[in-house]
Amino acid sequence: MSVDPAWLGTQRLPEVTVHASGVLAQTVRAELRQIRRSRTDTEVALCLLNRVHETPLPAEVQAAVPSDVLGAEGFVVVRRGDQVVVAAEAGHGLLYGFFYLLRYFEWMAGDFTVVERPATAVRMLDHWDELSGSVTRGYSGGSIFFRAGRVVEDLTRVRSYARLLASVGINAVALTSGPLPDMARLAAVFREYGIAVSLAVEADDQAAEWWSAAIARMYDAIPDLGGLVVDGVSFEVANLVARLLAAYGGTLFYRCSGVSGLDWRDRRADRARAAYDRFVPLDGRFEKNVVLQVKHGPTDFQVREPVSPLLGELQETRAGLELQVTQEYSGQQRDLCYLAPWWREVLQTELAGQTVAQRIDVVVGVSNVGDDGNWTGHKLAQSNLYAFGRLAWDPAADAVSLLHEWAAATFGMDERTRAELVGIMAGSWRTYERYTAPLGVGFMVAPGTHYGPNVNGYEYSGLGVQHFADRHGVGVDRTVASGSGFTAQYPEPLASIYEDVRTCPDELLLFFHHVAYDHVLQSGVSVVQHIYDSRFQGYAEVEAMVAGWNTIADRFEPAVRENVTTRFEAQLANAREWRDQVNTFFYRLSGVADTHGRRVHR
Amino acid sequence: MSVDPAWLGTQRLPEVTVHASGVLAQTVRAELRQIRRSRTDTEVALCLLNRVHETPLPAEVQAAVPSDVLGAEGFVVVRRGDQVVVAAEAGHGLLYGFFYLLRYFEWMAGDFTVVERPATAVRMLDHWDELSGSVTRGYSGGSIFFRAGRVVEDLTRVRSYARLLASVGINAVALTSGPLPDMARLAAVFREYGIAVSLAVEADDQAAEWWSAAIARMYDAIPDLGGLVVDGVSFEVANLVARLLAAYGGTLFYRCSGVSGLDWRDRRADRARAAYDRFVPLDGRFEKNVVLQVKHGPTDFQVREPVSPLLGELQETRAGLELQVTQEYSGQQRDLCYLAPWWREVLQTELAGQTVAQRIDVVVGVSNVGDDGNWTGHKLAQSNLYAFGRLAWDPAADAVSLLHEWAAATFGMDERTRAELVGIMAGSWRTYERYTAPLGVGFMVAPGTHYGPNVNGYEYSGLGVQHFADRHGVGVDRTVASGSGFTAQYPEPLASIYEDVRTCPDELLLFFHHVAYDHVLQSGVSVVQHIYDSRFQGYAEVEAMVAGWNTIADRFEPAVRENVTTRFEAQLANAREWRDQVNTFFYRLSGVADTHGRRVHR
Repeated sequence: MSVDPAWLGTQRLPEVTVHASGVLAQTVRAELRQIRRSRTDTEVALCLLNRVHETPLPAEVQAAVPSDVLGAEGFVVVRRGDQVVVAAEAGHGLLYGFFYLLRYFEWMAGDFTVVERPATAVRMLDHWDELSGSVTRGYSGGSIFFRAGRVVEDLTRVRSYARLLASVGINAVALTSGPLPDMARLAAVFREYGIAVSLAVEADDQAAEWWSAAIARMYDAIPDLGGLVVDGVSFEVANLVARLLAAYGGTLFYRCSGVSGLDWRDRRADRARAAYDRFVPLDGRFEKNVVLQVKHGPTDFQVREPVSPLLGELQETRAGLELQVTQEYSGQQRDLCYLAPWWREVLQTELAGQTVAQRIDVVVGVSNVGDDGNWTGHKLAQSNLYAFGRLAWDPAADAVSLLHEWAAATFGMDERTRAELVGIMAGSWRTYERYTAPLGVGFMVAPGTHYGPNVNGYEYSGLGVQHFADRHGVGVDRTVASGSGFTAQYPEPLASIYEDVRTCPDELLLFFHHVAYDHVLQSGVSVVQHIYDSRFQGYAEVEAMVAGWNTIADRFEPAVRENVTTRFEAQLANAREWRDQVNTFFYRLSGVADTHGRRVHR
Repeated sequence: MSVDPAWLGTQRLPEVTVHASGVLAQTVRAELRQIRRSRTDTEVALCLLNRVHETPLPAEVQAAVPSDVLGAEGFVVVRRGDQVVVAAEAGHGLLYGFFYLLRYFEWMAGDFTVVERPATAVRMLDHWDELSGSVTRGYSGGSIFFRAGRVVEDLTRVRSYARLLASVGINAVALTSGPLPDMARLAAVFREYGIAVSLAVEADDQAAEWWSAAIARMYDAIPDLGGLVVDGVSFEVANLVARLLAAYGGTLFYRCSGVSGLDWRDRRADRARAAYDRFVPLDGRFEKNVVLQVKHGPTDFQVREPVSPLLGELQETRAGLELQVTQEYSGQQRDLCYLAPWWREVLQTELAGQTVAQRIDVVVGVSNVGDDGNWTGHKLAQSNLYAFGRLAWDPAADAVSLLHEWAAATFGMDERTRAELVGIMAGSWRTYERYTAPLGVGFMVAPGTHYGPNVNGYEYSGLGVQHFADRHGVGVDRTVASGSGFTAQYPEPLASIYEDVRTCPDELLLFFHHVAYDHVLQSGVSVVQHIYDSRFQGYAEVEAMVAGWNTIADRFEPAVRENVTTRFEAQLANAREWRDQVNTFFYRLSGVADTHGRRVHR
């Protein structure tokens, strides 16, 4: 079976001359040999800056290069009439310039100068693939890397993946560590596309000697290893490993783990507090090459959470932001949920005068790919992988524009169809939010699988993620005044905004407050009526998505048509379960009927 | 590791003469060679009736044999002074007579005559062991039969198991079918103990030719195969297979499967109705060698259910009663739950003038053994296996007396300790009921595992086992007047008793009725107060069990002491979760405080 080219199957370029040498220049040349030729008289050159004199626009390029240099990954694009030059200081910039060209060439018009540099130094995808070949929280088949305890023989698929990642600016991946000669084979493929491999290891109780020897062996096999990813080790072990890595120039990516063993009986036991409570006291005590990898929200990738306050408080520790491209809690690639609007919101959230994007050195996404023919299970979920890379590069990018880019590149379609498809997809995160857990309360999911509703599924667990719904009201009191005090972890003005039930945004109300069912939201309706309204609306929106898709489905190739149609059917069924179970649950508790007399099952 | 002898490790007998030949007589002789000798002058003889003249009491035995003969499995025991003779018509009777002697010899006093015959023809244990070696709903380690797709090489353990089963009168087992030469090896071991093997096969869509060839091969390998166990096949296939089996004298055990795909929104969709609705119309249309294997209750082995009404309605179909010795919903051998009192209640329930025991030809228990050192995970759970066999033989046996028998045989202990142990164990089923789902409502368990509480765990499933708790009340309306009409499946007087909320027994109230929280039970307290009371009481009873155990624990060998002590700690934690989660759930819903002011978490 040939590999789905995803968003790299439709582009054309004219003849391009390359004025550069090195590994990544070779990669660009190899890419150019495979791209279909466009019929145009435009003359295009790609160069390293020290060879810009070989191109048609040396003076224009020199003038465009900013005084503070491009950096290893930046590039400049200059177009004058029928001449286009893309120039970079180093191989990475050349590679990203090439993919910029590939992405935008057919849309270029007029004279322009563009300078591009990534906002964040490390743009990384984590892979929860196990050596057995299964993928933890994977919804797209098995691993593309591993099978039966070994790295797969044929790395064609891995190479295609590396190419997709590089095309959206990803420069790092983390993989479960397996036999080192095998891992070196994988690293060699990623290296061709400028992607550094880091290894995730589980080794909680090992002594310094063990770590020292293990790390030496890893760098022996992969001299340009990015570093290690660890989870659940102590602060002391993290620093120990970081010191060992420092000798090789490696980074320690230290995941802030969740908590368990909380008592549901104790309303002050609050999972949301855990990461801040644990790591803020350690700020300043970490080695310089430690990146504290923080989940974007304080609980666990729910469909709506506030931003983790830990990101606003770290002063002397490098911070990484962890997002989930895999849709663990957002439909698992059965339901369509385009997450970029939310990721952008997270990245642009201001904490103590700086946006999250400004506060981080690393953006990590948990990958959503597997060995399914279309990579992501749901064909349209490719858009999340695409947008993740693009936002990691440019956190201010517009999520809808990225969707247009992706759709055009993926389907090469006419503008009207593209607009219709984008119209179906753009609001799908908010739609998903509407039919699932209301008002930021989260975790009303089936335990274990995390797909589908189970309103009380985690209500009596040891995870500290309850909703505390009773016959009078619902929500988690995380205020200083009467609750867990979590709001105090935020800088002003957020601390005050979240603390006050009158100013807390509706969509986060139940995350921060326990309120009566008749509490009136800023939107003007009561909490219980909002629960009914938003669930009916969410379901209706899925119906509209399906209807919209049905009007354009026959313009797609059969495999895409069938894949998306089937997934939409499943999504409609899922949305119906969510709507009815959540509505019935709260009707049984509150006894309040829907104002509009719609069907809420007893 | 030597195999735990369970209840066969303490007995002594004097010299016994055997006047019989055949396979089972050989087994008895081999057993006698291993039994420790008691110092007594009593002269004991075991014989087949046609050789009774070789024994000391031929006339007394002849006089004791009833006119309608003993049957193949019956035996007579005559004691006169220092002479005891046990006589049977056939090998099975001889074997069971021998185990009777082993069980009671040390307690025998005075002259007496006893005639014993089993109440039910087939007394069977089903084994949900998979060829892989795991045991579905097994809580005692892996399979004693299978490992990695094969039958285990060393059958010592299987032989010990067969001996334990024969000693309590089991004459049949069902095993997952594996490679036939392997299965023949297993059948040979069971054959020595008079136990017929049946094979469970999954073969839904096979044609007649396939079944014909498969059955021929099975009987080729195991000429005395008991038959086949099938699940989920159509009526037509069942009859087809039964006709093929009839040629070999085999039986088809046809399990009445559960249902799924019901809609929780539909209050008339009732799992409890399913077996009756499906099989009553087929009554009279089954082949004579079909046994319809009916779960004892209408849902699925809950800790409290009414008896399945299907057992009262079948007129022309042979019925089998299926019990679970494995404690799927009753504590999974982590919690102590001696089930015999309930099984006896089921067996003695009268349906249309006959007890369940009288209405059935077969009693089946799903086995609770695995390769754990003590067979059953919880040492004291051996008592369930023991009592199952003894009740299958004699459904009128007293459950507490059986416990005394088992405890004496297992531990050979002094009477005071035995009385204390029996006191701890005898009420453990009702204790388990008290701290788990109240008033017969059932299914408030963790989905999947079925251990531990999850009050809403199955509330929105497709299994039709809801509790419908809302802010006003709780329970399943299964009445004819306003509910699913399930009560009409019972014969009178049960139909009327269950239909009327005033006469329905408290312990089944919520199985049959949806009532308000302030509904007053026959016991005089309200439903919600009963919920609190029984959970607090259940927990206190576990505390008392643990305290009782701690006073006698040091009289047991270390392995038993540690095993039981550890399990009791887990049970106490489990009872606490049940108590608190159920109480909080209903407090949140009802808003009614505990009358006695005990701690119910908000």
